[in-house]
Amino acid sequence: MTNKYVYQFYEGNGKMKDILGGKGANLAEMTLLKMPVPSGFTITTTACNSYYDNGGVINDEIIKQINDNIDKLEEISQKKFNDKNNPLLVSVRSGSRASMPGMMDTILNLGINDEVVEVIAKKTNNPRFAYDSYRRFIQMFADVVMNLPKHKFEHIIDDIKAEKGVTLDNELDEDDLKLMVNKFKAFYFKNLNQSFPTDPKKQLLLAIEAVFKSWNNPRAIFYRKMNDIPNSWGTAVNVQTMVFGNMGDDCGTGVAFSRNPATGENKLFGEFLINAQGEDVVAGTRTPQSIDKLADFMPKAYEEFKNIAKKLENHYKDMQDMEFTIENGKLYMLQTRNGKRTASAALKIACDLVDEGLINVEEALLMVDPKQLDALLHPQFDNNELKNANILTKALAASPGAASGQIVFNANDAVKWVEKGRKVILVRLETSPEDIEGMNVAQGILTVRGGMTSHAAVVARGMGTCCVCGAGDILINEDNKQFTINNKVFKEGDYISLDGTTGIVYEGLVKTVEASISGYFSRFMQWADEFRTLKIRCNADTPQDAMTSLKFGAEGIGLVRTEHMFFESNRIKAVREMIVSKTEAQRKIALSKILPMQRKDFEEIYKVMKNLPVTIRYLDPPLHEFLPTSSYDISSIANEMKIDINELKQIISSLHEFNPMMGHRGCRLAISYPEIAIMQTKAIIEAAINVNKEFNYNIEPEIMIPLVGDVNELKYIKKIIIDTANEIINANNVNLKYHIGTMIEIPRAALMADEISKEADFFSFGTNDLTQMTFGFSRDDAGSFLKNYYDKKIYENDPFARLDQNGVGELIKIASVKGRNSKNNLKLGICGEHGGDPSSINFCHKIGLNYVSCSPYRVPIARLAAAQAAIKNKID
Amino acid sequence: MTNKYVYQFYEGNGKMKDILGGKGANLAEMTLLKMPVPSGFTITTTACNSYYDNGGVINDEIIKQINDNIDKLEEISQKKFNDKNNPLLVSVRSGSRASMPGMMDTILNLGINDEVVEVIAKKTNNPRFAYDSYRRFIQMFADVVMNLPKHKFEHIIDDIKAEKGVTLDNELDEDDLKLMVNKFKAFYFKNLNQSFPTDPKKQLLLAIEAVFKSWNNPRAIFYRKMNDIPNSWGTAVNVQTMVFGNMGDDCGTGVAFSRNPATGENKLFGEFLINAQGEDVVAGTRTPQSIDKLADFMPKAYEEFKNIAKKLENHYKDMQDMEFTIENGKLYMLQTRNGKRTASAALKIACDLVDEGLINVEEALLMVDPKQLDALLHPQFDNNELKNANILTKALAASPGAASGQIVFNANDAVKWVEKGRKVILVRLETSPEDIEGMNVAQGILTVRGGMTSHAAVVARGMGTCCVCGAGDILINEDNKQFTINNKVFKEGDYISLDGTTGIVYEGLVKTVEASISGYFSRFMQWADEFRTLKIRCNADTPQDAMTSLKFGAEGIGLVRTEHMFFESNRIKAVREMIVSKTEAQRKIALSKILPMQRKDFEEIYKVMKNLPVTIRYLDPPLHEFLPTSSYDISSIANEMKIDINELKQIISSLHEFNPMMGHRGCRLAISYPEIAIMQTKAIIEAAINVNKEFNYNIEPEIMIPLVGDVNELKYIKKIIIDTANEIINANNVNLKYHIGTMIEIPRAALMADEISKEADFFSFGTNDLTQMTFGFSRDDAGSFLKNYYDKKIYENDPFARLDQNGVGELIKIASVKGRNSKNNLKLGICGEHGGDPSSINFCHKIGLNYVSCSPYRVPIARLAAAQAAIKNKID
Repeated sequence: MTNKYVYQFYEGNGKMKDILGGKGANLAEMTLLKMPVPSGFTITTTACNSYYDNGGVINDEIIKQINDNIDKLEEISQKKFNDKNNPLLVSVRSGSRASMPGMMDTILNLGINDEVVEVIAKKTNNPRFAYDSYRRFIQMFADVVMNLPKHKFEHIIDDIKAEKGVTLDNELDEDDLKLMVNKFKAFYFKNLNQSFPTDPKKQLLLAIEAVFKSWNNPRAIFYRKMNDIPNSWGTAVNVQTMVFGNMGDDCGTGVAFSRNPATGENKLFGEFLINAQGEDVVAGTRTPQSIDKLADFMPKAYEEFKNIAKKLENHYKDMQDMEFTIENGKLYMLQTRNGKRTASAALKIACDLVDEGLINVEEALLMVDPKQLDALLHPQFDNNELKNANILTKALAASPGAASGQIVFNANDAVKWVEKGRKVILVRLETSPEDIEGMNVAQGILTVRGGMTSHAAVVARGMGTCCVCGAGDILINEDNKQFTINNKVFKEGDYISLDGTTGIVYEGLVKTVEASISGYFSRFMQWADEFRTLKIRCNADTPQDAMTSLKFGAEGIGLVRTEHMFFESNRIKAVREMIVSKTEAQRKIALSKILPMQRKDFEEIYKVMKNLPVTIRYLDPPLHEFLPTSSYDISSIANEMKIDINELKQIISSLHEFNPMMGHRGCRLAISYPEIAIMQTKAIIEAAINVNKEFNYNIEPEIMIPLVGDVNELKYIKKIIIDTANEIINANNVNLKYHIGTMIEIPRAALMADEISKEADFFSFGTNDLTQMTFGFSRDDAGSFLKNYYDKKIYENDPFARLDQNGVGELIKIASVKGRNSKNNLKLGICGEHGGDPSSINFCHKIGLNYVSCSPYRVPIARLAAAQAAIKNKID
Repeated sequence: MTNKYVYQFYEGNGKMKDILGGKGANLAEMTLLKMPVPSGFTITTTACNSYYDNGGVINDEIIKQINDNIDKLEEISQKKFNDKNNPLLVSVRSGSRASMPGMMDTILNLGINDEVVEVIAKKTNNPRFAYDSYRRFIQMFADVVMNLPKHKFEHIIDDIKAEKGVTLDNELDEDDLKLMVNKFKAFYFKNLNQSFPTDPKKQLLLAIEAVFKSWNNPRAIFYRKMNDIPNSWGTAVNVQTMVFGNMGDDCGTGVAFSRNPATGENKLFGEFLINAQGEDVVAGTRTPQSIDKLADFMPKAYEEFKNIAKKLENHYKDMQDMEFTIENGKLYMLQTRNGKRTASAALKIACDLVDEGLINVEEALLMVDPKQLDALLHPQFDNNELKNANILTKALAASPGAASGQIVFNANDAVKWVEKGRKVILVRLETSPEDIEGMNVAQGILTVRGGMTSHAAVVARGMGTCCVCGAGDILINEDNKQFTINNKVFKEGDYISLDGTTGIVYEGLVKTVEASISGYFSRFMQWADEFRTLKIRCNADTPQDAMTSLKFGAEGIGLVRTEHMFFESNRIKAVREMIVSKTEAQRKIALSKILPMQRKDFEEIYKVMKNLPVTIRYLDPPLHEFLPTSSYDISSIANEMKIDINELKQIISSLHEFNPMMGHRGCRLAISYPEIAIMQTKAIIEAAINVNKEFNYNIEPEIMIPLVGDVNELKYIKKIIIDTANEIINANNVNLKYHIGTMIEIPRAALMADEISKEADFFSFGTNDLTQMTFGFSRDDAGSFLKNYYDKKIYENDPFARLDQNGVGELIKIASVKGRNSKNNLKLGICGEHGGDPSSINFCHKIGLNYVSCSPYRVPIARLAAAQAAIKNKID
């Protein structure tokens, strides 16, 4: 049996999005609901995929079915291509399963040629309209089908206007437009070496192929990558009888939402233009009027539209985004779909629809994209101000929010300027752990190098600080404290503004507004908490982080990175002293200076988190990260530490590693220098005892060993921890339970999880490192080639943002199964960046993890994503 | 039921090595064979393990069994501890399952004390002998049981001699020795704060515990690591009635082999001393006589020993290494074991035993350690010369063989000096790919930094060039062309000699001798070839490598690394030109210069290998490896290439990577720059066509894509290769089959092997990188902590030398199973360093790989190891 590649609208329905695309399915559904939809047909996504499989050729069967359906359409519409009396004109639009901006624009008026235009002129008694439609068609066709950009035609229009001495389009008459059509055709021929096609069927096939092709244009690929849409979905093509909103004052066109998409208010929201075609609304040359004004001009059409809108909303049980055209007083529906909305509107609409009895809570929870919540948690730019702001560049939107301030070029300056009461944007080639303090005080962070998981991005997201990364257009000179972009020089103290949600960098100061979290937020999140089974923890290194995450609903801390604490200016000295120690004894002296500070860190965090679980990871990064790199810093530190500068240089060089990622770090440090693990154990156990005593809490410390690849590593360190901890516990004569677990972040650890789990109370999947090692590329270096990978469609997603379920996920599954085979009550969690990514959270739910841990600002996202995972996997 | 921890010799047999150790089992076996073995008993390895499990305490049950067995021994021997007439003296010796030098020395004469010594003096009528035995016992006991070194007693002996005015030990009389015993006991008390134990049972328990402890002394741990002996085996302890070879001229002691261990000649070989104890033979103060002279002194004992030797050889079906003592004309056997032998002796003995009908070919093949063959393939130092050579240092024996020459400090100098006809040793801090040419011409390579798998080590082994690595005692100043060791300065042109088999560096010129490969070698290797099922290929980058490996029996090349060819001085320029290209067009021009050279490379290799399969891997290392690093080189290259020096610096810096291992390399290069893959495809296909035509061969190129982690990578490059190859094949109008496969060296590739195999004709496991990524450490950086891992018994083996079967091996198994599930005729091989390691080869055989590929000099080892794997796994 041959595939059915083409469906008349009346043959489909709203559930057939997979093959008809969203637009096609909804047109079919509206047809089914007997709404006034101009007749037409949809070429399926299967046809698109077949086009690609067939080496970019539409096969004969599909062409046959298209032709058959043109015949049917001609029969239904009582119009015919090239007909001398009643010529058929159609629109052609792309429509994939998910709404996808960036794909082919609409082509209107397809079917016009030199003969048809005259028929239309006669039939409408409006030759100007006919020729205007023709020239628009040529321009649109050239642009979207032939890649001859629209704007290249503009000089022809300008010439004609100049010759005539007018400035506005509507000052041109029928003859001018006829002339224009001829000049357009000539220009078309000159540029493309072929005549403008006169056969409507040929026009249509070329347009259909253009839609297929647009599925793989760079913008579409980029959009899919950003939105996790598989390449394999393909796009459908909708061919629909034209209706005209521009045939007179009883005509018009408009777009409207069944509720307000900005606020969620339950009131029709939208705009329309009298005597206009869709593109006029988009072009913005005329100012549309608010939809409620339509009642004044065409009360009947308005009432009908209002009723249809309500009906559609009740039918789809969601706010609708609709397009319509009124031709000679008659309303036609051209599109409906679930409307995009702001985060706060999304929450209000979801709550309202529940209250209106239209949906239940589960449906409401599935209605809101978790990622959207992010917008509610960060300040944003004032939209009015943005309109006038000068865009300097667009780079990676690494950490959301908006920030304005004065440029500084290093972390020290950031601290100094902020102490003087200024707001700063820290601009760096790339950041390193030394910059932590400066990053912490900055309003926003801008880096020239680095991707979505570079140091700057990861740390900024953790802090909830706005960050734009990888702004490669910027030529930075950190020493001279200036950067250049588009030949414009920016110096220390100049103002810039960053939008971490879009990645745009603006010149000057752009005002920000605090986003408000409405009451709907907490009501909605409570629903989420009722449904989810995954626990949500956060990654927090400071009491502030801990507080933020508590506010956002975290149920514990899944990862305290102890090393960030080491960089604070008052303790980095002792840390460096420890590193340059030549003997264990020297190292112990240095560590004894760090101990009280680290104990206090933990006490503060315990106080904030009260009895909630807190997992503390032992020192992880290679020691050289704590040492200075510039010769100035080296000499001043040598001086300070009273050691020979050459000796210090020698120590730094001896710690150099070819591949620091795969070097002397993680538990390997504790194995080489057990005294570090001893110090950290003391700090944790003593802190827990102190806080338990003071507040009568019952804290059970969770100690996490990083980078374990063999059970013997864990055994070795565990013994040190137990010996140290028990000695303190006994000396204090208290009862204190504590738990020792490990990160699973090395492929070997996952493969050997049955052995390792025998010694571990819990596993926490460190999916950042696990991804790096499983893929064999470092996130710091992958930027140089991953772009090629996306361009060439080798990868569809950034594996650092979205968990690679096939590869990395397979290891996680192996580790979970093997781990629980050996210890069936083994607690499993995840603390990589993926812990805040909805699709990854869904995976974590499915394979039975106990919790996910993410940066504080991701906690609400994770709560919702976890609820959705629970609901979806129950339904499935 | 309680464990049996102690066996009398007559209770055991030769098969009980696991619990009695090698020595104990053989003593039991000889007892069983009614050979004259002094009675005794063995404390089992189980007891040793129990000692460790029990926190270093011998438990009561074991002590009870020891005491019971002392009673039994007293009964059998008719001697008693502390007996006034017939006192029991025993020897105590360690004995693990495998022969293990580095563990506890023997303790003789245990049981002597102040009373017993008098009984012995009276009984033997030889007080001098009695007191000499006593003082030796004190000295030995203090040394091995109490860690009070033997040599610390020497000053007492010297003092007594000086007082008496004599110089030789045998000039001391009974009274002198009595004095010495007293002084020894006093010295013992002074140093250890306790009296020398007088109770024989206490002496014995302390000695047994000392043997247990010696299982974990650093030398023993090191030896186990080097020889893959598990920590868990433990050692047994043998307690045996003393017999005395030093009671007069009808006494003696000796060691002998049933055949010549150096040559394999079938003739008793060994030496003996009249009137001496075992340690006199070892001490070397008296010159022993050849074993056949024993016939003159004690013909009866000699005949008996000869018969026993033959009987033992026939019984064990292998050459025996025996120890004996003759007491008052009566022969006693103290030990027998399969004797160690040189590689050439091993081959001759194996062949002879087959010819003598004593063993079959399979047994012969299992008799020779594959690693031993290495010694036959490289030149060695002349042993006589070595005796006078001054040792400078001992470092890692990175690549076997011996080499002498004049020191040079960089690769260019190496080339220049060799052109002048000199032999050079290249001494470097560490080597990099730029040094290849210099390494190639050098006699040997010495590096200050780097481990067994450093660049120098890997490349040198591949070349078969002698190499010593990681000589950290050397302070090198490459710029001044000198190094310092032990305060002695060596300059360019000075002579040194390297032993790559031992890691020793000698001062000056030490003569080498070519090792001769006897006829036994080829006969033996033919046997191996008959039994093995694994194919053996080699890793070869040059026609010379290919020729060497053919000579050693390779059946193809499993890995041609194309990048090594890029470093040759006449082409590195074009390579650099390619790298600094800013456009694809520029890059293509540069590549077109490389193409003819690369094609010629492949033609040469194909000509050598004739129709044998050759797998060529596409460019793998990150491009920055080809660029200069020193500022001098940068400026001269900028000059040469006519580009601005700052621009060149900028390019070099833009190619910098944080973790080059995990950066832009392998197939990622071909994806970014398909033109490189196109050039390499052209070179391979054209070369194959040309050579096929010229010689009427039927070469089928095997093209291997490195570092694949996703099937889409392979698909993308495969299309490029197929398009390019087919165009050439069609243009030439020839038939040429070619195969495209991939390395599996990234964990994700193993996990996704079912997908990847659909696009691959073969997999080759790149276990070097796979090990790095599975363990999460780079071999260049792991040196800094792996030492701690061995010391702390976290790892027992170097995973880069011996395949980690649990972790990395698990991935290989997953990939093999998944790969063959999708494609059941998928060819599987391994081309990492492990391809030449016997235990890894055994693993490869077991999981069903088709071939292993190793460096040329490892080919014979691999052939034998593969045969052993086939035999062992058949028997099992």
